[in-house]
Amino acid sequence: MNTESRTPIDFYFDFSSPYSYIANEWIDALAARHGRVVRRRAILLGVTFQAAELKSPVSYPIKRDYALRDFARSARFEGLPYLMPSTFPIPTQNAARVFWWLQETQGAEAAAAWTRSAFRAFFTRDIVLSDPAALRALLAESGVDAEAAEAAWSDPVWKDRLKQANEQAIAAGVFGAPFFVIDGEPFWGNDRKLQMERWLGQGPY
Amino acid sequence: MNTESRTPIDFYFDFSSPYSYIANEWIDALAARHGRVVRRRAILLGVTFQAAELKSPVSYPIKRDYALRDFARSARFEGLPYLMPSTFPIPTQNAARVFWWLQETQGAEAAAAWTRSAFRAFFTRDIVLSDPAALRALLAESGVDAEAAEAAWSDPVWKDRLKQANEQAIAAGVFGAPFFVIDGEPFWGNDRKLQMERWLGQGPY
Repeated sequence: MNTESRTPIDFYFDFSSPYSYIANEWIDALAARHGRVVRRRAILLGVTFQAAELKSPVSYPIKRDYALRDFARSARFEGLPYLMPSTFPIPTQNAARVFWWLQETQGAEAAAAWTRSAFRAFFTRDIVLSDPAALRALLAESGVDAEAAEAAWSDPVWKDRLKQANEQAIAAGVFGAPFFVIDGEPFWGNDRKLQMERWLGQGPY
Repeated sequence: MNTESRTPIDFYFDFSSPYSYIANEWIDALAARHGRVVRRRAILLGVTFQAAELKSPVSYPIKRDYALRDFARSARFEGLPYLMPSTFPIPTQNAARVFWWLQETQGAEAAAAWTRSAFRAFFTRDIVLSDPAALRALLAESGVDAEAAEAAWSDPVWKDRLKQANEQAIAAGVFGAPFFVIDGEPFWGNDRKLQMERWLGQGPY
């Protein structure tokens, strides 16, 4: 199918979001089934939470217990491995800046490969992406030049690029992750997969 | 299938919750497919929100726009009619007290019939359940003795019964609606339908 003639699916995510990890594993196949490509957009959920006056589900004690259980169950439901990170949530600006650096210097495939690698490392191997040494080791293991990546995450150019991405997300109405936009229609959450599939298959309903 | 030998599915809901309206339409068939019965528990979401320090999604301006869109889309996804109530959210203590009065004086089927009738009235016909006159008319139309129902919703006995239900819900970890418990496993949200179906079919995963 010609994937160029249709608009991409925008996929907003934060590297510290369990539901984003899960969605990242199914979104490409879903898009491909409907002749679409995925346009990934790494953001910082904390920034969109602040703009929308929201907080993480795990910051509410009663909701937290449920959320931790649901993260793991939702991963298993999709047939995915899951290990609750021992440090959670974590600041993800360095991983996200690396994403934008790869996206804009090496292209969408390199950025998507890094996304997969970083999500799997954090949510199945307890690799703390906010720790510079752990991040460098993961980058090297993932076939990315770790030294160049570290230079990128310290560079105002890529700091600004991430800031722009956060601002664009807020302007687009994003207040959580994963957040998808298909032809202007917003879908929030890993649990909107079936609604997205129907939208892609039959159009607006 | 013998439905007596298996524990019921607990279904907590508030009459002002759109996702609870949707779930109320599919939960009986889901339960029946797996030889279960549904144990409905009308509660006041405001009370559980307060206990969990949460608020309604529509109380956050940015989330509100998405939520209103998602309510309607989620209903259409299930093939259900939906009309956003002109007054929303509403206090639902009277409708909920009628539920408990019916449940304990006439049984689960009468209470389930009232639940269906009240949800459909509010979410497809803009009948404001918090308005006593509208509520009386709906009760009469639904085959319930409206005078007796009004006496019940003003009676300390049924006020207390609802209060107990709220307290039991909080003790069970309920912080939103619809909220389901299957053999001790909690499921929050209309969008957990498939996870529940799998849990019922194959057991814990």
